[in-house]
This record gives sequence, C-alpha cells and structure tokens, in this order.
Amino acid sequence: MDLHAKLASLGLKLPVAPKPVAAYVPAVRTGNLIVVSGQLPMVEGKLSAVGRVPSAVTPEAAQLAARQCALNALAVVGDQIGGDWSRFVRVVRIGVFVASENDFTEQPRVANGASELLGQLFGEAGRHARAAVGVNVLPLGAVVEVEMMVEVK
Amino acid sequence: MDLHAKLASLGLKLPVAPKPVAAYVPAVRTGNLIVVSGQLPMVEGKLSAVGRVPSAVTPEAAQLAARQCALNALAVVGDQIGGDWSRFVRVVRIGVFVASENDFTEQPRVANGASELLGQLFGEAGRHARAAVGVNVLPLGAVVEVEMMVEVK
Amino acid sequence: MDLHAKLASLGLKLPVAPKPVAAYVPAVRTGNLIVVSGQLPMVEGKLSAVGRVPSAVTPEAAQLAARQCALNALAVVGDQIGGDWSRFVRVVRIGVFVASENDFTEQPRVANGASELLGQLFGEAGRHARAAVGVNVLPLGAVVEVEMMVEVK
Repeated sequence: MDLHAKLASLGLKLPVAPKPVAAYVPAVRTGNLIVVSGQLPMVEGKLSAVGRVPSAVTPEAAQLAARQCALNALAVVGDQIGGDWSRFVRVVRIGVFVASENDFTEQPRVANGASELLGQLFGEAGRHARAAVGVNVLPLGAVVEVEMMVEVK
Repeated sequence: MDLHAKLASLGLKLPVAPKPVAAYVPAVRTGNLIVVSGQLPMVEGKLSAVGRVPSAVTPEAAQLAARQCALNALAVVGDQIGGDWSRFVRVVRIGVFVASENDFTEQPRVANGASELLGQLFGEAGRHARAAVGVNVLPLGAVVEVEMMVEVK
Repeated sequence: MDLHAKLASLGLKLPVAPKPVAAYVPAVRTGNLIVVSGQLPMVEGKLSAVGRVPSAVTPEAAQLAARQCALNALAVVGDQIGGDWSRFVRVVRIGVFVASENDFTEQPRVANGASELLGQLFGEAGRHARAAVGVNVLPLGAVVEVEMMVEVK
C-alpha cells in the first residue's frame, strides 16, 4: 500500500510528527502494539482550532481538527516503523476527546474526522475500535485530542 | 461456564450488539485482546438514560445504565468470539465515563453498575482494572459510556 | 536497578498500594502487560488534593498530586511483580485526567508530575506514551487521576 499516494489523492500529506508538549514520548512499542500519545490538532507547531464546540469552533471545523490529530498520530507511527508502511497491520483503537459545551452531544460526528480518514487510507485495516467523549477543556485549549493504538509486524 | 444461564439468573439477557453510531467498528482483535468500542446505554436502539448525574439522572439510574453499557459490550465480545464463551479468558480493563454535574463525585458508584455485573457473571475472570472519571457531556447526551478490553484464547 | 534507592534519593518511598474504591481490582495482567486501575492522589487513605485547578488547587499542587498518583500506580505494579523490579521492562502509557476549570489549559504541566517521576526513576524505560485531558470532576473530588500500562517479563 502506498500511503503517501493515498494521502496525496485526498489532498493531504503526512506531517512531521509533532514533538510532545511535555515530559513523555510520542509513542511506545510493546510487542506488536504501538501506543501513540494523545495528539492535538497541531499544524506546523500551531493549534489549528482552539476552544469548545460549538461556541468557539463549529462541528465541521472540529471534524477537520480531528482529522489533523489522526494525521499527526500517523506521522508518529511512521517514525516508529521507519517509514516502512508494509510493517503496518491495523489500527486497533482511537480515543477521541472533544472540548464541548455542556449541551453539545455530537462528539461522534467530530470524531468521524479521524475515523473516516483512517478508513479512506487503510480500508479494512483502518477499521478501529473507538471511544469518543466530551470534556470541558483540553491542553492548550485544543478543540480535540486523539490517541491511537496500532498493530504492526 | 454458561453465560446465558448466569444472565438469566440475574433477570438479564445478552442484547443484540448495538451498531456503532459512526465510522468505526464495534471491536477489534489484536493478538489475544479484544478492544471494544465505547458503549452507550442503548436498549433496543434507544438510550435508556440521558443527561448528567444527579440533575437529570439519579445515581441509581446511572448505575443501571452503566450495567446496560457493560451488557452491550459483552454482546460485542460475544459476536467477536462467535458466541463461544469457552474462548473468553478474562476482562482486562473497563473505562467508564460518567456525564456529571460539576459537584457530583460518586463516579465509582455509577461505574459499579458495570463492575459488579462482570463479577457476578465471570467471578475471578470478571475482576478487571478500571478507570472511572466524570465528564461534562457524552455522545447523544448519554449518561454513561463504557469501553472494555477483554482477553480471549 | 534499585527502585527503592532511587526513590529515597528523591525523598520518596513506595506507598502501600491503595485499595480500589469500588468493585474492581488494582491491576490485571494480560500477557506481558500490566494494566493498572486509575489511581487517585491518596496518601495514607486520604486524598492529598481535592477540587479543580486552579480555583481550588494550584497547578503546582496538582502536579504533586499527579506524582502521588504515579507513586500509587507503581505500588500496585510492585505488588503484581512480587516486589521483583528486575521483572519490570518499561512504562508503556499513562492516562492523566485533570479536574479543571473551563479555562485551565495547562493539563500537560500537571501531568508532568507523573511523567517526570517516571523518567527520574526508570530513565529510558520510564519514557511513556501519554494522553492528558481536562475533565470537570473526578471521583471523590480528586484533582487528578492517573492510569498506567506497564510491560513486564
């Protein structure tokens, strides 16, 4: 599978993996699992969307931000496997936290920004388990945070 | 172990596994682990309890909703193992998110609705690690969401 | 590695593992992974810090509370491996939930209380993946909750 060609066909490319914002690492491998740290919607070092849905960020913009988080997570995975995507087996799980006003209940729609990208890129191997929840606030005021667990060989 | 007889003795039965509310799958298996997506307290396609504890939902009702989430998660596990519960080894972890007013701090009591059911059904094999937290809002306004990791053989 | 000497050099010692506050167990082992339940900043059976950051708890105090959660999680790990830390391989992941006012966005700084301790104690083997988020409220009103996944042999 040529991930980069797939990304290009969607008008996307794998970013440089963001640096952690504190004292941890982007990912850890244990056995055949890579556990990726929670990713914010960073684009070239800056958050692409800040604040809660829907007061400060529309659901549509939050969905794009979730897609960016997933892209950043994949960049981290790519670093872990030395860019050799033939070693990628499947996405196991994503956890999606959406900064939400108390009455916003469409977290699944926001999280689909990440989920649909994974399906588009990997097909069957991108189909993942997911937990999506609302929270009142996220690091740096980000609108969404996505963590990921991936199986590799 | 006859799970269905155990359930019947508690006046319960395994529901049909709920369909995901968005672009992901109910569970993924990796190695001997099944990772189940976050389950809402769906009963025949409808949420059994909506809103925050305790303003809209009592702690007792939220506890029953957590039990329903666990039932739904087990239905998903059942599908993954083709209904052959001799392949079930143990529950490893549940994550419980409780939609909570800012001053409600009894999330453990709510989460016990899931935990106690697992103990009743599986005994030692149902004893699990757990993280239970409050959040301001959950998908579709659900009062509780439970994700699960199970070991199988 | 002499964990206890390292702890002593930091003026710390491993506490007695806290008992779960409800119907679950402190940790479950599956394969080479130990999954530790969410730990609160308990010190001798009492929460060391209660309420949200920064209204009720300063970021500095919350950081110390996160360190205490990590200590408690390590106490649980120690029990699982019978106190034989030569069986410890690495910390894989921590999840950090910080009880936050709506405008507090320094969850990474709070979570560093846990992360930096793990680095000080274990060096390379303490470098972990992390998800840190804000929530409106935690069990018993705790300011922070930390869950942990560890690889052992």
